[in-house]
Amino acid sequence: MTTFVLVHGAWHTGAELEPVAAAIRAAGHTVHCPTIAGNRPGDAKTTGLDAAIASIVDYLADNALSDVVLLGHSYGGMVITGVADRAPERIRRLIYWNAFVPNNGESLTDMVPPHFVALFDEIAGARGDGSVILPFPIWREAFINDADLATAQAAYDVLNPHPHATMTDKISLSRDPAAMEIAKSYLFCTEDTAQPQSHGWHPRLSEKLGLFRLVAIPGSHELCFTDPQALAAGILKAGRD
Amino acid sequence: MTTFVLVHGAWHTGAELEPVAAAIRAAGHTVHCPTIAGNRPGDAKTTGLDAAIASIVDYLADNALSDVVLLGHSYGGMVITGVADRAPERIRRLIYWNAFVPNNGESLTDMVPPHFVALFDEIAGARGDGSVILPFPIWREAFINDADLATAQAAYDVLNPHPHATMTDKISLSRDPAAMEIAKSYLFCTEDTAQPQSHGWHPRLSEKLGLFRLVAIPGSHELCFTDPQALAAGILKAGRD
Amino acid sequence: MTTFVLVHGAWHTGAELEPVAAAIRAAGHTVHCPTIAGNRPGDAKTTGLDAAIASIVDYLADNALSDVVLLGHSYGGMVITGVADRAPERIRRLIYWNAFVPNNGESLTDMVPPHFVALFDEIAGARGDGSVILPFPIWREAFINDADLATAQAAYDVLNPHPHATMTDKISLSRDPAAMEIAKSYLFCTEDTAQPQSHGWHPRLSEKLGLFRLVAIPGSHELCFTDPQALAAGILKAGRD
Repeated sequence: MTTFVLVHGAWHTGAELEPVAAAIRAAGHTVHCPTIAGNRPGDAKTTGLDAAIASIVDYLADNALSDVVLLGHSYGGMVITGVADRAPERIRRLIYWNAFVPNNGESLTDMVPPHFVALFDEIAGARGDGSVILPFPIWREAFINDADLATAQAAYDVLNPHPHATMTDKISLSRDPAAMEIAKSYLFCTEDTAQPQSHGWHPRLSEKLGLFRLVAIPGSHELCFTDPQALAAGILKAGRD
Repeated sequence: MTTFVLVHGAWHTGAELEPVAAAIRAAGHTVHCPTIAGNRPGDAKTTGLDAAIASIVDYLADNALSDVVLLGHSYGGMVITGVADRAPERIRRLIYWNAFVPNNGESLTDMVPPHFVALFDEIAGARGDGSVILPFPIWREAFINDADLATAQAAYDVLNPHPHATMTDKISLSRDPAAMEIAKSYLFCTEDTAQPQSHGWHPRLSEKLGLFRLVAIPGSHELCFTDPQALAAGILKAGRD
Repeated sequence: MTTFVLVHGAWHTGAELEPVAAAIRAAGHTVHCPTIAGNRPGDAKTTGLDAAIASIVDYLADNALSDVVLLGHSYGGMVITGVADRAPERIRRLIYWNAFVPNNGESLTDMVPPHFVALFDEIAGARGDGSVILPFPIWREAFINDADLATAQAAYDVLNPHPHATMTDKISLSRDPAAMEIAKSYLFCTEDTAQPQSHGWHPRLSEKLGLFRLVAIPGSHELCFTDPQALAAGILKAGRD
């Protein structure tokens, strides 16, 4: 069977993907849910994108993983793109789940609307430790719109402050994703409004992959909390050969 | 539980939303389906937008309703926007179901394509009593595309001539919807072709709400006739806190 | 009940639509799945669009078919548009299933992105018999993205080289589709990435029909292989009066 490595998004850790991993394991596969440097308990919130990418490259090496289906969620798309550039020999397919797709020299904030860039700058400035948090009303209405309030609140309570530098650092790649030889899928949750349509996930970002496989499923940006079984089913379709 | 007030679209009355209301009541909520001035039996077809809005403001007051989840369908979006501006203290959340979202000074016809504006002008001119009707072929193919012919015909038979002035009158608001403090949802039926994509409901109109919650479900502009249970389920997701 | 004629796309024959036809027949209808000239065993791969259209016009006449619901898939949209122009008296409704919609004087290649035009030119040049084939990686990822690998491979194995001239010939019509009196539906598989979004099926091509009925269902460009039952259900909704 297949080895999946699921890389979380901003404010998350790998633990939030464990219910999804359990559903994939139930289908007979191996699943890892590492936490990116900067989001682990005790990590410096000044962590940058390069260190974030390196932590997942190291995770693959330390666990001697190869022939991996590597998924990135949201900000995790920045990370898996960097990992695929540095350790392509370990990867069988990339899955971008409502994820950022950077070309060489782009940062996450190059791909989000100006009002989010300004909001993150303001929050980071106020916090002063290098981190940003997401205000609850935005989380509840625009990120996890398919949840009831209790689920939205419980999910919000496990989020951790995110290192702002990982969002503003420009990625350094030897090749843009469209030029990478690795197979690629875009898993698109169709009710995701974490970014407005003018800065939407698909097709704006998916088509930067060149030839890719689209799998579309209902759900918000945070389907890992609201329907991990449905997300796992989508990942299996996106991840098969 | 919650008090819902469902405000119908052009050519409809509240009665057509009763099957939806029944499904929401079955979940334990209170539901009102008032008919807007201009669409009640005997109403003058010269009724304008201001009187239409006032009739729902009065309905809320007469029934001493507060903490209301107020839904508007299509033209009903014009009405609930006006109600929210005049009686914000009664409203907990607005739901726009494939509905128009006006800023101050806009009319419904400012948001529809030129060929519909011309068609309505022509029909109103021919009828001479201030009302417009919708030709059956447009209704059947573009509005209720998910129905069988018998359902499409039966639904058409209960429509009433709509006061044209409510479509051409400019709305007067003290604040645009994006600036309103009230929580807002957009309930989007994804197969709705009542307006062409160039003048689509979401995201063109939904994003005028500022921060809002998207709930998307399959169905046409007239899901109240074709699947009231599915519509009720969508309203419950859109209307919860 | 209704007589359906299902017209396949490029590289296909009518045989690939038989599982769909069986599901429609089970609902009590009559279904024909002719193969277009140029795709039948032994046909010259220099066949042009005019001969392709004529072969379906002849099929309707030879079988004395009238009051037909005529469906075209992909390239089949070119063919049914030509048939509707030449034999409108035989047709009750057109269904375009993720299909091209040409106006007078347009070719299929006028509606696809430049990289596909170049790819087809290159392949046709290399083959030298007038035909083009589709490389497997494009088929697997962009055309039949909802299949498992075995289904994708088995479906690929039954494809036949397609006459390139049918893609580059300009269609000759007495009226554009929007001006045709015949009822029209667009059946849209929402996960179809056979054409990129910048050259998408709906609404870019569907809105060339004028007044039309939209039916949208999940699935790839090749739903006939991956879920013929779901496709048949969509065709029944698109094809009813």
